[in-house]
Order: sequence, then C-alpha cells, then structure tokens
Amino acid sequence: MGSIGIVSPQAMHFAEPLRLQSGAAIGDYTLMYETYGTLNADKSNAVLICHALNASHHVAGHYADQPKSAGWWDNMVGPGKPVDTDRFFVIGVNNLGSCFGSTGPMHTNPATGKPYGATFPVVTVEDWVAAQALLADRLGIECFAAVMGGSLGGMQALAWSIMFPERLRHCIVIASTPKLSAQNIAFNDVARQAILTDPDYRGGDFYEHGVVPKNGLKVARMVGHITYLSNDDMAEKFGRKLRNAAERNDYKFDFGIDFEIESYLRYQGDKFSEYFDANTYLLITKALDYFDPAREHGGNLAKALENTQAQYLVASFSTDWRFSPERSREIVEALLANRRKVTYAEIDAPHGHDAFLLEDVRYMNIVRAYFQRIAAEQKEAA
Amino acid sequence: MGSIGIVSPQAMHFAEPLRLQSGAAIGDYTLMYETYGTLNADKSNAVLICHALNASHHVAGHYADQPKSAGWWDNMVGPGKPVDTDRFFVIGVNNLGSCFGSTGPMHTNPATGKPYGATFPVVTVEDWVAAQALLADRLGIECFAAVMGGSLGGMQALAWSIMFPERLRHCIVIASTPKLSAQNIAFNDVARQAILTDPDYRGGDFYEHGVVPKNGLKVARMVGHITYLSNDDMAEKFGRKLRNAAERNDYKFDFGIDFEIESYLRYQGDKFSEYFDANTYLLITKALDYFDPAREHGGNLAKALENTQAQYLVASFSTDWRFSPERSREIVEALLANRRKVTYAEIDAPHGHDAFLLEDVRYMNIVRAYFQRIAAEQKEAA
Repeated sequence: MGSIGIVSPQAMHFAEPLRLQSGAAIGDYTLMYETYGTLNADKSNAVLICHALNASHHVAGHYADQPKSAGWWDNMVGPGKPVDTDRFFVIGVNNLGSCFGSTGPMHTNPATGKPYGATFPVVTVEDWVAAQALLADRLGIECFAAVMGGSLGGMQALAWSIMFPERLRHCIVIASTPKLSAQNIAFNDVARQAILTDPDYRGGDFYEHGVVPKNGLKVARMVGHITYLSNDDMAEKFGRKLRNAAERNDYKFDFGIDFEIESYLRYQGDKFSEYFDANTYLLITKALDYFDPAREHGGNLAKALENTQAQYLVASFSTDWRFSPERSREIVEALLANRRKVTYAEIDAPHGHDAFLLEDVRYMNIVRAYFQRIAAEQKEAA
Repeated sequence: MGSIGIVSPQAMHFAEPLRLQSGAAIGDYTLMYETYGTLNADKSNAVLICHALNASHHVAGHYADQPKSAGWWDNMVGPGKPVDTDRFFVIGVNNLGSCFGSTGPMHTNPATGKPYGATFPVVTVEDWVAAQALLADRLGIECFAAVMGGSLGGMQALAWSIMFPERLRHCIVIASTPKLSAQNIAFNDVARQAILTDPDYRGGDFYEHGVVPKNGLKVARMVGHITYLSNDDMAEKFGRKLRNAAERNDYKFDFGIDFEIESYLRYQGDKFSEYFDANTYLLITKALDYFDPAREHGGNLAKALENTQAQYLVASFSTDWRFSPERSREIVEALLANRRKVTYAEIDAPHGHDAFLLEDVRYMNIVRAYFQRIAAEQKEAA
C-alpha cells in the first residue's frame, strides 16, 4: 500500500454553454480534474470521486515540490488503498463555481470582461453532475464502475444515479442526506449572512477592490466547523481546557481567547478565510440547500429513485449530527422500496461528520471490501 | 388565575464598590428590579427570579400603556400561577452589565465621563449573585423561600445555594448545566467573533460614533437561536417550506431568502440587533463560559456543593440539545452524593432549550406543585 506519488491537475475547456437548472447558462468554462491509475481497454474501471464543500479535484497524491499537498482523500485512494488505483482509474473533478481552478466567481466573465463575483450563476448538484457527465464524455467514459462521494459529494453520487442511471454500475453515498433539514439550512444561512454583511464583501465584487471578506468567511467557517465535529469528540479533545498552559487556572476576563476550543476554531476560521472564496462559499451552501431530488415527486424519495439502475453502498457515522445515520437510512429505505441492491453500513465512530474524511479501520475495510466486489464483478464480466 | 396587571420597575443605587471575581471593582452602580405580590411580616415568602441571556428584571405583568410588554415569565409568575404571587413576594432583578437599566456598558463610567463600552469589567455568575445578595440586604430579606432560574438563570440559582447556603430554602434550576461544554463555548465564540469583527463595533466604543454593530449582533443571535430550538421542532415548524407562497415551488437562485427558516432566523436576528447591546452580549456569553463551580474543587461538582443547605428542584427538557437532560442529571447526582433533597423532572417537550420559557402543562404543574409544597412548609412553620 503506497502513495500515488506526484500528480498534476489537468484542465478541460468547454465552449458550448451549459444550461443550468436556474434557467441561466454558463459558456466558455473550464473544469479542473486529476486522474490516478490507468483506464483499461474497455474503459470499464473508471471511478468518479465527487468533492464536498471545501475540497477539489485534488483527491490523492502530492504536487511536485509540495510535500504537504496530499489530496483530501489520500487515505482512501491509491495503490492498495480501499479505492485501489492499481485496479481502478480514478477521476477527481473540481465543480463549477469552486475556487480551485474550475470556472468560478473569481474568473472573468467573458460577457463583461470583469470577474463574475456575485453574478456567477447559482449552480446546483444536478448542474455539477451534468458538467461532470460532459467531462466523462470527453474522456470517453460511457459508464463508471462507481461514482462516489461523502457529504455534498454523496449528493452528487446520488444525483448521478438518478440523472444518468445507465452511466454508473455502483453509487457510493457516504455521510450524506437526501435533503437538508431546516436546522442544516439555518446553519448555512448564518454562514451566508456572516459573509454577505461583511463590508469587505462589497456586493460580491471584492476582487476589484483588492479586499477579501475575511471576517465573514471566518465566522462562516467557525459555525460550519462546529457542525462537522461531534459533541463528544469536542468534549474529549478540548473540553474546558484553557489555552495558555502557564496560566491554566486563570481566566483572562476579557474577550480574547480563554479556552483551547476558541483558539482552535478561530485558527480554523482564519486559515479558511485565507484560501477560500466568499462567493464560492455562498454558491456551495445554496447547492446544499437546494438538493432535494424528491421535491419534484411530491416529496416521495422512492419515486425519485424509481429509474435508478446502480447498486449502492450507503454509509453513515454514529456521531454525525450534521447528516445523521437517520438521514442515510431514508436513502436506504427509498432504494429498498425500489428493490435496489443496497449495502448499508452505520459506522460507530467518534468523529462526527468529519469521520468520512478520516482514517477508521472499519470504515476503510467496508469501502475496500465493496471495491473488491466491484473488481471481482469486472473480472467475471471480462 | 389572572395577570399581575400593571407593574413598574424600581432602581436601587449602590455607592460602595463591588469587588468582582476578576479582581476589578465596580462602584456607583444601579440595579433595576421589579417586585410582585406582598412580602409577609416575617419576610419568609420572598422568591428571587434570575434571568437568562436576553431577559431582564421584567419577569411578569405589563407596563402602563404598553399592552405588549408582558414580562418574560408572565406564564409562570402571577396570581394563581405556578409561582403564585398571592402567596409569594417575587423579585426580578436585572444583572450588572445588562442593557435593560442596571449599570452596563452603555452607561457612563464615572471615572472617565464616557460610556464604559468594552471597558466594562467582565462579570461572572458569582458577581451577579453577590450583587443580588446586596439588593436582598437592602430589601431586608435574609432568607429566600426560593431562588429560581432557567438556563443562565439556573446557574445563578445554583451559585446562590453555594455562595449563600443559609439564605435560600429552595433552589430551582431549570434547563441548566453545571458548566458549558466545548460545543457550547464554541457557539458562544462564533457569536463573539461576529460582533467583535463587525467594523461598527469600533472596539466597543460604538456609542460615541452613533453606530451599532447590527450585523454582528444579528449573526450572533441567529446562531444562538438555532441552539435554542430542537431539530425536530424546527423540522416540524419550518421544514423545507419556501417563504413565498405564490412561488412555493420555485427556488430563487440568488442569495436572498428561499426558505421560511431563513426568513424566521433573519427576522429574529434583525429584531434582536435593534434592542440588544453588543457589549452586553459579549459579557453575558463570557459569564456563561466561565461558570464552573466545580473548577476550584478539581472538577468535583459534589465537592463544590458540599456546603449547600437548600432543597432543590432540577428540571430539564428531553429535546434540549443546548443544555441536555444529561447536564441536569450531573447536578442531581452531585446533590445526591451530598444527600441533599432533590426533586428531578425530565420533561418530554418538543421545544428544545426554549421549552423553559414556554407553556407546557406538565412543566407548569411540576413547578406549581413544588411551590405549593414550599407554601405548605411555610404554613407549618408559622
């Protein structure tokens, strides 16, 4: 089991406008992507990995001369890893509207010659999937062995199985939900309000003013981060520990940092505000809020999944209170109502929503076993 | 069972400086308070009600010519109500640092001639209790029949029983906790960061600049509000309902309001930002974070409660995830370890943390029965 080693991102340009769910269209756009492993002769071993809120096409491996640049799912994808790049050809793709290279709000709108800013069209999970399908066309992949993702990435995998039922054999949905709850939307709206009311947001045109709404992004990230961690895990890691070891018994009696949890969260917020784009954050939270495949079927998720053909692996984590196991079970039940083949794993893990990104023997073994089954099927078919 | 009717706040001035836990002192301060009912001859029927984050001394009744000015616990306190003002003399007091009349950050610091702003000393639950005790002295009340509060108010009641064991016969702690968790502190720090980074906060001196950090207060309130409601209650009340009934099936595809929960939360945030003081919000979240009576006993809560003499009513609500029933049970267990008389009620209610303010037959009946017992004891003693 080794690392993929040095990888390089690639860019694919699309001239043809993509019609979006909103009715708007985006033309002349670029998708960044990376690939790992080798596409086999009949192009049957391709796996698409969809990313969540703050990730990108850089799923695994490192960039040359950047030893700390491991991909966000490097523990999952690589030679001998659960998604084994000795067997599978894995694709990571950065979504439209993101801030890691694919066309997004900070890029120039060819129609105006200025950055899109807040005028970048609101994109949905389904729009992303439509764009990913065009990328797959270009790569000559008619049918994926699997489409896979965690959290918002899991929503994309689920949407793939609805929109292009014949284009994936397996759909892997981890720590996800068929739709956000009111509480989920509420947290997203707090984040949006923090950004939108930051004077440095400048109505989304902050690029031209040489400023960044760092304070808004920081608060947005802090509140988001709380929902990624479990209450228990936070209690264990931080509890009420004071930050300054030399004064462990002293409160500071000001509005600075007393507790380690404050220091940790503010640090996470500051770090995030230095690399993430505010307009992208708004767009991605909206894509989360809007995702609801049952909506056009009167709320009937089973009906929404009626035409699917894939087999499914659905996995959830016991302490995930953002997208709790109950939400994954809704997906499983709707699939079973359609007599789909579903493997469901509810993994007892302490790390809350973040667990889908972390090392956990049981979790990794489940994904590994599932991909071994996919590989075995392919041998049989060959 | 009727209303108290028209009530009027009173002010009590204290010239003598109050030494605070931080080491600072505050002199020449005023406490606002209200009283309901009549103090009996031996002054044995007094009940002190301590308020939570955004409440005040105005516990019950209405102000003249302000029909919509019902006190925050008007359903709990009044003639024939659970805390029966035909039997008890009830006192509501506004805490130091608040923004409803007692001396706080917006008042003039006599030492500088300017508003305190962020220089108002950080006050603790124990400081508030010390000030409340001085008010009780002035009112000639040596021993309360009960000290009572919900949430942060419950912390004050608990602190009373530790700091002045001989000055209360009953201690009523509702929807509270012996200390905040890391997650609780994290949410408070998000709120603080939202306020502190609002440019209109002006380092706390916004009064002089004629501005108010409304955006920061709004975001602070929004995130706080989410923690007051239960996930289930939010799902039931709002779910994924869209706001505009005429376009119920249409997403707006912008960063405005799509969902009713967004409209509700932003409205709550806006309303709050119009009447609440930003420095007070910072102070009160710090008082919450700092409360931890077990701290000076190596984390041993039973030890912290060793010298208490009161009898206790502890109550929690099943869907309260801010201060869950588990946190109340910690208090109960520590009291039982000291062989204190404790009544514990875990009330199955859908409304989350807010339940302590709301009408609920079982909840009201429990408090009513408890106060009937207190009244019966007094008759016996008389």
